[in-house]
Amino acid sequence: MGLATETFFLDPDAAGTLQARIQAMVAQGILSGRFRPGERMPSSRALARHLGVSRMTVTLAYTDLVADDYLIARGRSGYFVSDTAPQPSGHVPAPREDRVDWQRALQPVPAPAPRVERPADWRRYRFPFIYGQTDPTLFDHANWRLCALRALGQRDFDAMTADHYERDDPRLVDFIARHSLPRRGILAGPDEILVTMGAQNALWLTAQVLLGPDRHALIEDPAYPPLREILHQSGARVRPVPVDAQGLPVEGLPVADVAFVTPSHHCPTSATLPLERRRALLDHAARHDMLVVEDDYEFEMSFLGPPAPALKSLDRDGRVIHVGSFSKSLFPGLRLGYLVGSKPFIDAARALRSTTLRHPPGQIQRTAAYFLELGHYDALIKRMSRAYRRRREVMDAAVAHHGLDVAGRGSFGGSSLWMRAPGLDAAALAADLRVKSVMIEPGAPFFADPAQGRETYRLAYSSIPEDRIAEGVARIAAAIDARRPGP
Amino acid sequence: MGLATETFFLDPDAAGTLQARIQAMVAQGILSGRFRPGERMPSSRALARHLGVSRMTVTLAYTDLVADDYLIARGRSGYFVSDTAPQPSGHVPAPREDRVDWQRALQPVPAPAPRVERPADWRRYRFPFIYGQTDPTLFDHANWRLCALRALGQRDFDAMTADHYERDDPRLVDFIARHSLPRRGILAGPDEILVTMGAQNALWLTAQVLLGPDRHALIEDPAYPPLREILHQSGARVRPVPVDAQGLPVEGLPVADVAFVTPSHHCPTSATLPLERRRALLDHAARHDMLVVEDDYEFEMSFLGPPAPALKSLDRDGRVIHVGSFSKSLFPGLRLGYLVGSKPFIDAARALRSTTLRHPPGQIQRTAAYFLELGHYDALIKRMSRAYRRRREVMDAAVAHHGLDVAGRGSFGGSSLWMRAPGLDAAALAADLRVKSVMIEPGAPFFADPAQGRETYRLAYSSIPEDRIAEGVARIAAAIDARRPGP
Repeated sequence: MGLATETFFLDPDAAGTLQARIQAMVAQGILSGRFRPGERMPSSRALARHLGVSRMTVTLAYTDLVADDYLIARGRSGYFVSDTAPQPSGHVPAPREDRVDWQRALQPVPAPAPRVERPADWRRYRFPFIYGQTDPTLFDHANWRLCALRALGQRDFDAMTADHYERDDPRLVDFIARHSLPRRGILAGPDEILVTMGAQNALWLTAQVLLGPDRHALIEDPAYPPLREILHQSGARVRPVPVDAQGLPVEGLPVADVAFVTPSHHCPTSATLPLERRRALLDHAARHDMLVVEDDYEFEMSFLGPPAPALKSLDRDGRVIHVGSFSKSLFPGLRLGYLVGSKPFIDAARALRSTTLRHPPGQIQRTAAYFLELGHYDALIKRMSRAYRRRREVMDAAVAHHGLDVAGRGSFGGSSLWMRAPGLDAAALAADLRVKSVMIEPGAPFFADPAQGRETYRLAYSSIPEDRIAEGVARIAAAIDARRPGP
Repeated sequence: MGLATETFFLDPDAAGTLQARIQAMVAQGILSGRFRPGERMPSSRALARHLGVSRMTVTLAYTDLVADDYLIARGRSGYFVSDTAPQPSGHVPAPREDRVDWQRALQPVPAPAPRVERPADWRRYRFPFIYGQTDPTLFDHANWRLCALRALGQRDFDAMTADHYERDDPRLVDFIARHSLPRRGILAGPDEILVTMGAQNALWLTAQVLLGPDRHALIEDPAYPPLREILHQSGARVRPVPVDAQGLPVEGLPVADVAFVTPSHHCPTSATLPLERRRALLDHAARHDMLVVEDDYEFEMSFLGPPAPALKSLDRDGRVIHVGSFSKSLFPGLRLGYLVGSKPFIDAARALRSTTLRHPPGQIQRTAAYFLELGHYDALIKRMSRAYRRRREVMDAAVAHHGLDVAGRGSFGGSSLWMRAPGLDAAALAADLRVKSVMIEPGAPFFADPAQGRETYRLAYSSIPEDRIAEGVARIAAAIDARRPGP
């Protein structure tokens, strides 16, 4: 590959002769790793014209660079970066000294929340009990490609390329309104729906338009760690409410402006909020003029029974804001989700979305719309549900066989078990297990006080093949035994 | 198409017999437009099982709905929504009464900035002097599709599907570092680059991490209207600085924490900031410990001469934050741009991006990386530049021929002329011209005080075919004459 002439600039502030400055520029490009061995330099004629210097100056510079083995000459083909050129010393060094006091210049931000561990190379582990990632053996990659290809067609040129400012893809919104939401018992019109960059973006927009330093928010404890980060970033006073085996207890629930809940599958315990609690929660909200934000992630994974209708389906007052996501059912790298709520709220969230990023890319909105419209999504959910059901059976059996301590599991389904290892530090257990090619997720990051989650961990079955579950659970049981003091 | 059984829910709070509630549910679905003429109802057996009622109850409900012409029975095929069913009355009515005081519930936000007008059907106009949209006759749609297809391949499954939290596509970042930035004279390592959802998202992230109510910001006047919205949203005190024919005047420039500038092509006048002013601006920034945010949009459109190196290329102190975008060169619906700056700044912007939306979708990052790597991008820029150069020549000639008043034009290129219609209201002129199938953009929204831009308008040549320019400009001249008082 030839290096583009346009990427060469003489430093206007550098000292030295023109020839020396050209040599320095080339050597610096090689030492910084920008020009790589074997790459062809511009011809001396082209570079001279571009820099506005004589050709002889460039030729002399090149000749000196050959002498120093930065370049080699290959007869008529020109000059190339030498294979034995001095090695770049790591990353590109910035040719400057930073004189900015960044600590002063940057706005203060809350410390980032602890993360659920997931190394980039998790697919290399044989027993990945890892949550929320796409299983290539289940995902319908072929039809996704076909839908993407269709969305890239001439007829959809405007849907892909145009700047839509505040508008979403009408086909995607129509599908959500007519098919996705009715499955949750929700009726909503197009102006009560906003497409977002995944559920994370939906929760962030919601927190920004509803919360501020003068507001109070409730969050389940444990909860999805990024949500805690989002709420703290809003400046609101955040109060964690410990959940029990049925999810958020409503009796004695504090009063606040907004409560963030996961009624369908509590994150991370998978508990389902019973109908009486849902009604009580809405009564409590009505009595104290509260809003309720329902993160309805993973409702599609209800293979053990029909999912309970969404909390939003019981909402008569417009108090519930519903967050949906395609991350679990399609794939998280897609970054598509949606918000459902009263028009004034959706309008405010739309305006904020527009200021921060305008709109989710047209191309992926249209691809998703086709995938949904053509029924591939429903077929995918069925396939995933069948596989998860079998995995869940094997999980339940293996966990029971080894007497592991289950702290929570979804009565409708879900994709993980919530576990406890009494007396042990789950983070240390996870470290032990990695050496055995087993990956589990320590639960501490889900808790407002991580120490409270020290003994907990999550075992997801969305990415581990069915036939490896038994062996994986056996290894977990063995690792727990090894950590326990002997008799 | 059959209506999915799972989308039917009985309202647990409704009164009446089971049969009446089923009838109401179906009628409501039709009246709300959710069930459409010709769609097949679930079989009475399936619906009865799903709702947990007797099959006879459903059959009786269906029979009554046929009598009311909501449904028709087609022998063995089952029941369908009647073609002559009562018409839905507009949008889906929400079956509730909103009891939320949204004005109290929503955080106060500044009023949205006025927008540059661009109706959705602008492509139907014969003479669209419209800015920043993709010209299908220039864009390399075929190769974009091929690159998208490759990014959808099995080998890139993880790049597309995985949740990357904070990380960007390394291939895209590498290309930006090794090829895009050097063309602007900028050397930066991967940890000094952040991929964003377009330039808008880059500017928003920058404003959020650098500004707050305790900070002062400078903005050019006129300027890109969404930037004004972004700065006001940050809570900072914003001071507009009037530009002249050479862009931002540095002499007498106020002191502030951050200055937002467009040195390559001032938006919207296209003025290029001369080298002396760039140096003076950096000196001013160093003296007063200011940061400078450089929006380097449209640098690729420098077909009249090589572009001036970016302001960032002169930055020795790490004070300049550079914003790049693929919206003008690829397409705005892509939503891809990038930030370049010192690592502490990039780290802060990355953390904020992660909280708000995690990362731009993997699929579009990888597609763009391939399009760039394979050289299609450079070829596209060359093609666009050739076309724009020709269009610009025709523009300049037509504008001169009719004696129109040019208030600014890019000396290196650009894709628009900045115009003035002395004594006229450009918004009224634009309205006159729409009737003549000519679309121009009134300039008022670019100004801090819109009244100051009353006579200005923008004439872009990025979307109008070369052979329509002369006639389009003639119509503009005629409309101006028609508005001027006779002699």
